[in-house]
Amino acid sequence: MSATVHVFGAAGFAGAQLAALVDAHPWFTLGALTARGDAGRMLRDVHPRYRVDRELTTPDPAVVAPGDFAAVAYPHAESAALVSELVDRGARVLDISADHRLRDPALYPEWYGFAHPRPDLLAEAVYGLPERYRDAIRTARVVANPGCYPEASLLALLPVRDRLAEVVIDAKSGVSGAGRTPTDAVHFSTVSDSVTAYKVLTHRHTPEIAQELGQDVVFTPHLVPVDRGLLATCYARVTGPVPSQRELLDEYRAFYADHPFVEVVDAPPGMRPVQNTNYAQVFPAVDARRGRLIAFGVIDNIGKGAAGQALQNLNLMAGRPETEGLR
Amino acid sequence: MSATVHVFGAAGFAGAQLAALVDAHPWFTLGALTARGDAGRMLRDVHPRYRVDRELTTPDPAVVAPGDFAAVAYPHAESAALVSELVDRGARVLDISADHRLRDPALYPEWYGFAHPRPDLLAEAVYGLPERYRDAIRTARVVANPGCYPEASLLALLPVRDRLAEVVIDAKSGVSGAGRTPTDAVHFSTVSDSVTAYKVLTHRHTPEIAQELGQDVVFTPHLVPVDRGLLATCYARVTGPVPSQRELLDEYRAFYADHPFVEVVDAPPGMRPVQNTNYAQVFPAVDARRGRLIAFGVIDNIGKGAAGQALQNLNLMAGRPETEGLR
Amino acid sequence: MSATVHVFGAAGFAGAQLAALVDAHPWFTLGALTARGDAGRMLRDVHPRYRVDRELTTPDPAVVAPGDFAAVAYPHAESAALVSELVDRGARVLDISADHRLRDPALYPEWYGFAHPRPDLLAEAVYGLPERYRDAIRTARVVANPGCYPEASLLALLPVRDRLAEVVIDAKSGVSGAGRTPTDAVHFSTVSDSVTAYKVLTHRHTPEIAQELGQDVVFTPHLVPVDRGLLATCYARVTGPVPSQRELLDEYRAFYADHPFVEVVDAPPGMRPVQNTNYAQVFPAVDARRGRLIAFGVIDNIGKGAAGQALQNLNLMAGRPETEGLR
Amino acid sequence: MSATVHVFGAAGFAGAQLAALVDAHPWFTLGALTARGDAGRMLRDVHPRYRVDRELTTPDPAVVAPGDFAAVAYPHAESAALVSELVDRGARVLDISADHRLRDPALYPEWYGFAHPRPDLLAEAVYGLPERYRDAIRTARVVANPGCYPEASLLALLPVRDRLAEVVIDAKSGVSGAGRTPTDAVHFSTVSDSVTAYKVLTHRHTPEIAQELGQDVVFTPHLVPVDRGLLATCYARVTGPVPSQRELLDEYRAFYADHPFVEVVDAPPGMRPVQNTNYAQVFPAVDARRGRLIAFGVIDNIGKGAAGQALQNLNLMAGRPETEGLR
Repeated sequence: MSATVHVFGAAGFAGAQLAALVDAHPWFTLGALTARGDAGRMLRDVHPRYRVDRELTTPDPAVVAPGDFAAVAYPHAESAALVSELVDRGARVLDISADHRLRDPALYPEWYGFAHPRPDLLAEAVYGLPERYRDAIRTARVVANPGCYPEASLLALLPVRDRLAEVVIDAKSGVSGAGRTPTDAVHFSTVSDSVTAYKVLTHRHTPEIAQELGQDVVFTPHLVPVDRGLLATCYARVTGPVPSQRELLDEYRAFYADHPFVEVVDAPPGMRPVQNTNYAQVFPAVDARRGRLIAFGVIDNIGKGAAGQALQNLNLMAGRPETEGLR
Repeated sequence: MSATVHVFGAAGFAGAQLAALVDAHPWFTLGALTARGDAGRMLRDVHPRYRVDRELTTPDPAVVAPGDFAAVAYPHAESAALVSELVDRGARVLDISADHRLRDPALYPEWYGFAHPRPDLLAEAVYGLPERYRDAIRTARVVANPGCYPEASLLALLPVRDRLAEVVIDAKSGVSGAGRTPTDAVHFSTVSDSVTAYKVLTHRHTPEIAQELGQDVVFTPHLVPVDRGLLATCYARVTGPVPSQRELLDEYRAFYADHPFVEVVDAPPGMRPVQNTNYAQVFPAVDARRGRLIAFGVIDNIGKGAAGQALQNLNLMAGRPETEGLR
Repeated sequence: MSATVHVFGAAGFAGAQLAALVDAHPWFTLGALTARGDAGRMLRDVHPRYRVDRELTTPDPAVVAPGDFAAVAYPHAESAALVSELVDRGARVLDISADHRLRDPALYPEWYGFAHPRPDLLAEAVYGLPERYRDAIRTARVVANPGCYPEASLLALLPVRDRLAEVVIDAKSGVSGAGRTPTDAVHFSTVSDSVTAYKVLTHRHTPEIAQELGQDVVFTPHLVPVDRGLLATCYARVTGPVPSQRELLDEYRAFYADHPFVEVVDAPPGMRPVQNTNYAQVFPAVDARRGRLIAFGVIDNIGKGAAGQALQNLNLMAGRPETEGLR
Repeated sequence: MSATVHVFGAAGFAGAQLAALVDAHPWFTLGALTARGDAGRMLRDVHPRYRVDRELTTPDPAVVAPGDFAAVAYPHAESAALVSELVDRGARVLDISADHRLRDPALYPEWYGFAHPRPDLLAEAVYGLPERYRDAIRTARVVANPGCYPEASLLALLPVRDRLAEVVIDAKSGVSGAGRTPTDAVHFSTVSDSVTAYKVLTHRHTPEIAQELGQDVVFTPHLVPVDRGLLATCYARVTGPVPSQRELLDEYRAFYADHPFVEVVDAPPGMRPVQNTNYAQVFPAVDARRGRLIAFGVIDNIGKGAAGQALQNLNLMAGRPETEGLR
C-alpha cells in the first residue's frame, strides 16, 4: 500500500525539497513534478543537491486521481485556482502558498490584492501547524502550510499565547526564503556582510501571525547573510501572573512533550542545529521584574518553514507516523 | 601646532583603528601605542590593513604630558584605574571602555561587578555622543565613548526620545564587536550561516541605553555572520500625538540637520553604506493606526560604534572641526 | 546480529559526526564515545546538531572487546599509540588520524616529527580509499582514513593517475577542516570575506597525495569562508595520447561506475551538492591543444573527507553494504 | 588648474567607484556620469556607500571637450565604438573594458566574438599596468585598464617573468567581479558556503595574461563567497638558476621598491589588507628542490583590479602624483 503525492511547482526551493523528501519516503510515491519555466529539465539538474532523477513536466491537473495527494508550491492567487481544481478532482491538497491560510476572506483583497475564488474552501481549510491543529489536519481536504515567519513565531509563543499582550516579533531570515528568482535583493554583493529589514509594517505574514495569536502584532522581517535558517525573536508583555524562568521552561516542555519536532532548549538557539532538518528549537526567557517575555523560535525556513512541515502535514493527512521520512 | 594622542590598548580592533585614524589625521600626532600581549610587535603586523608602522609598547602612563590626549581601550575596571592616573597627570581622556558611561556609581557593582574607584570622575565625565552632548564634550576632561549598541540605538531614537514608551531594542552585531580573542563564540564554524541572541536580559549596554533614553528598555543583542556592522531595530509606543510618516521623517531630518555623521534615509538601511565609515544611517517608520514607532539605526561597530566616534570626540575636545580625518 | 563501534575522540568535528552516523546506522551499535577536555558532557550539548544523547567518557581502551571496531580521531602521534593498544586487544581499527597513512616509516620523522612506534602496523595498514583499495579494506585490521585534501585530490585524478606528470593541486577548504579549537586563524573576523593560502610547500598531506599518485606533487591548501566543503583543482600534463573531452568523461564514468559515492559531473562542481553527504563530485577537463588536464574534486571535508568516509570503510570492514547508513 | 574626468558607465561597480574616487580627488573634476538603465537616478541612490550626489545621465559623447579625460566602463565591443568617438573628439581615454588590452587584433574575433573597429587605436593603446608601462601611460591617448585577474596574476609574476615556464594560474575572485546584474550565478544561495570554478580553459582574461607574460598559460578562475577581493595563486617552473627564498624576496622587493601600491609581504596574503584600497600584496615562495615557484597576488577586484587602477592611470596620464586621491 502507498499513496501518490504530486508536487505542483517543484522547481522552487520548497517544492524541490518536498519532492526529494517524498522521493525518499518509505510509504509515499512520487507522482508528477511540475514546473513552468523549467519544464523539460531534470530536477537533478535544477537542484543537484537533491539527486532526484525525475523530469519536471508542464502542469496538468488531470494527472491527479481521486485519493491522491497534491502539494502546491505556487505564487499566491495562482495557487487558489489550482487547489480548487485539484479538490474538485478528488485530491487532498497541501497548499504551500498563502492562499488558504487566512480564515477571513476579506483579508485577501487587503493583503494579497485578489478576491479569493473559493471562500468555501477557505472556510474548510485547516491551518497546517500540527502543534496546534494536529487532529484537524488528519482529516482535512485542504491544509494550508504555514508561512515560514509565522511557523517560527508561533512555535515560540504557542505555549503562552493566551497570556500575551503588545507582541513584537523581530525576525531574521536566510536568503533562500526570498526564492530562486535572481534580483538585486538576493545578489551576493547586496546580502553578504549586511543585515536589512524589509517590508516594514507591510509584510503579508503579519495577518497570519495575528490570526493564530488571536491579537494584533508588530512584525519586522530582516534578511541576514545566511542561506537557510530563520530566527524569530518575540517580545511580549505577560498578562496575569508572571512565571519564573523555571516554571516557564517547564510549561514549554510540557506543551511540546508530545510534539516530536519542537525542541525546548536552555539558551537562545542558533540556526545550525535545525538546518537541513524539520526541527524547530524554542527558548523562552522571562524578565520577572518587568513582566516581559522574550521567546526565540528557530527553524530551517525551507525545512520546518516549508517542505519539511509540508511532509509532516502529508504524513498526518495520510494517517502515517508524523515523523516518517523526516529524521 | 598639533596635539598628541596616546592610545592605550592599541592592539584590539577599536584601539588599532583609532591609532590608524590618528596617524592619518592632519592635525593630531600619534603618541604612544600600548599593548599588553602584543607589546614589541609592530602594529602593522598585528593589523596589516591599517599600514601603521609603529611599535606597540608596554603601557606607561608617564609618557603622557599635561595637555596631551589619551584614548583608553581597556577592559572595564582596568580602564577606570588608568583613566584616573592619566587625568591626574594632566591629560584629557577619551575612555572607550564602559567605565565612565554610567552616571550612577551604584550601577557599576550591579552590572560590571566592581566598585568605581573615582565617583568624582564619573560625575564629571561627559557621555560622548555628540548628537546629544556636543558642547559639553568640547570642554570635558573625561569623555566616555558610547558602547556600540547604545550608539546605534540612541541615534535611532534621539529625535523622539521624550515621546516613547515600552521601548524594545533588537540589535544585530557583526562579530568584530566581540573582540579579537579567539573563543568558541567567534569560531567561523559557530558564527557563519547562523544568527544567535546572547546575554538575553543581562547585556551590560542595557543600563547605558536606559540612562540616555530616560527610561527602562528591553534590549536583546544578536550575533550575525558579518565582520563589521551593527543594526538596531527599535520598537516603541508613541506617547502623545502620533506623527505621519512624512512628519516623522521631517522631524528626524531637522534634528540631525546639524550633525554631519547621521544620515536620515528613506528606507530600512543595510550595513554596506556605513561600513568602514563614521556614518550612521537612521530610518524611522510609524504605524499610525497603532501608534507604534519602528526606528532603525545602523553603524559600523568599530567605526561610529568605537574608533570613529572616538576621533569625532577627540576632534571636539581639541577644538578641531568635527569631521577632520573622518571623511 | 550487530557489531560495536567505539569512537575515540568523539568531541571533534569528525569524531562527533561519525558517532552520529553510527548512532543512526541500522546495523552498528555505538560503543564508547571518548573525549579528553569534554569528558562528562553529553555529546548533544557539545554538538547540538547531531542529537546524540550519549555521554562523552574518559578514554579507556579496556572497554574494547575482541571483534569490536574502534575509530580513532586523535592528533597524530597520539593516535599511533592508541591504535597499537586497540589492535593488541583484538579490535579492528579505523584510524582517522594521519598515523597509518604513509607506508614509508621514514616519512613520519620528516613530516610529522615523530618516529612511528609500530612499523609493523604501518606495513599492514590499508589506505582507506575504497575507490582504490576496496577489497583490501574489507579484511584489514587497520584502515587509515585518508586526509581530506588527499581524498578530494585523489578522486579527481585516480582514473588517469598513470598518465600524469607535473601535478599541481590547488585546494580550497572550509574552516571546519581546521578543527574545533578557537585560534586567530579561525576567528570569523579573520576568515570571512577573505581567502588565504597556508602551509605553502609544507602541508603534511603532500606526501600522502604523492604516495597514492606515485609521483611528486605541488600542493597548496587555501582556507575559504565556508564551513564545510573542500574543492581540489588539480592540474597536470597528460603523458601519452591526449583524450578528447568526451573520451575523458567516458573514462571517468567507467572508472567510477561501480563506486556509489563518486559522481562524475558535466561542469565544475560547487560545494552544495556534496555538503552534509558522503558524495564526491569530480569533473575532468582536457586542454587537447596543450595536452593539459584540469580535474576538479569536491567533497564535504567532514563527510567524504572524514566521518562519512570512515563509516564507508567500517561498512566494508564489517562486510556490510558500502552505502549502509550513508544515504 | 584642474582637468575633467567623464565616466561612461558609472552605474556599474567599477564605474561608480571611479566616480567616487574622482569626486574626492584634489585635482580632477568630475564631468558627466553616464548610465543606460539607471539614467535619471542619482548615483547616491544606486550606490549609497559612495555618497556621490550626482545624477546619472544618458551617454552623450558631445559633452567631452578636447583635453578632457574619459573613462569607459562598458561591455566589450560597445566600448571600442565609444572610445573611437571620444578619441576623435580630442579626449584622452582610459578604457576599463577589454577592448584595447590585446595587441593582436586577431584575438578579438577569437576570444571576444567581434572584429575590432580601430586596429590603429589598438596599436597605439598602452596596457595600463604602471608596474610595467608607467612611462608609456603618461603620454598615451588610450590606456587599457587591465582585467582584474591579469592585474593580480601579473603583479605576482612580473619580477621573474623572463624566467618562468609552464605557468598555471588558479584564481579566486569575489562576486562583485561578476558585475551588478542579478543572475543565478550571483544569487546568495548559489554563492554562499561554496567555491566553484567557471569558464575553465575559456576565460577571456587568458590571452591577456599570456600577452603580458610572453607565454601561454593555464588559467582557472573560481568564484568565492567574498564580495570584494581577488587572489591569484600562480605556479611555474623556474628556468635558469633557482634563487633561495631570501634571494627571491629580495628580488621582488627591489623590483617593486619604486611602485607605491605593491607590497611584498612575508607570508601568503589574505584579502582584508587590500580590500577597499588600491594596494596589491604579493608573496613569492620557491621550492628550491624542485625548482618551482608559487607566487601569490591579492587585490581588491574593484580597487587595484578596476577603479583604483583606473585612477592611478589617470593620475599618470595627467602628470599628477601616482598616489593622489588613492590613500
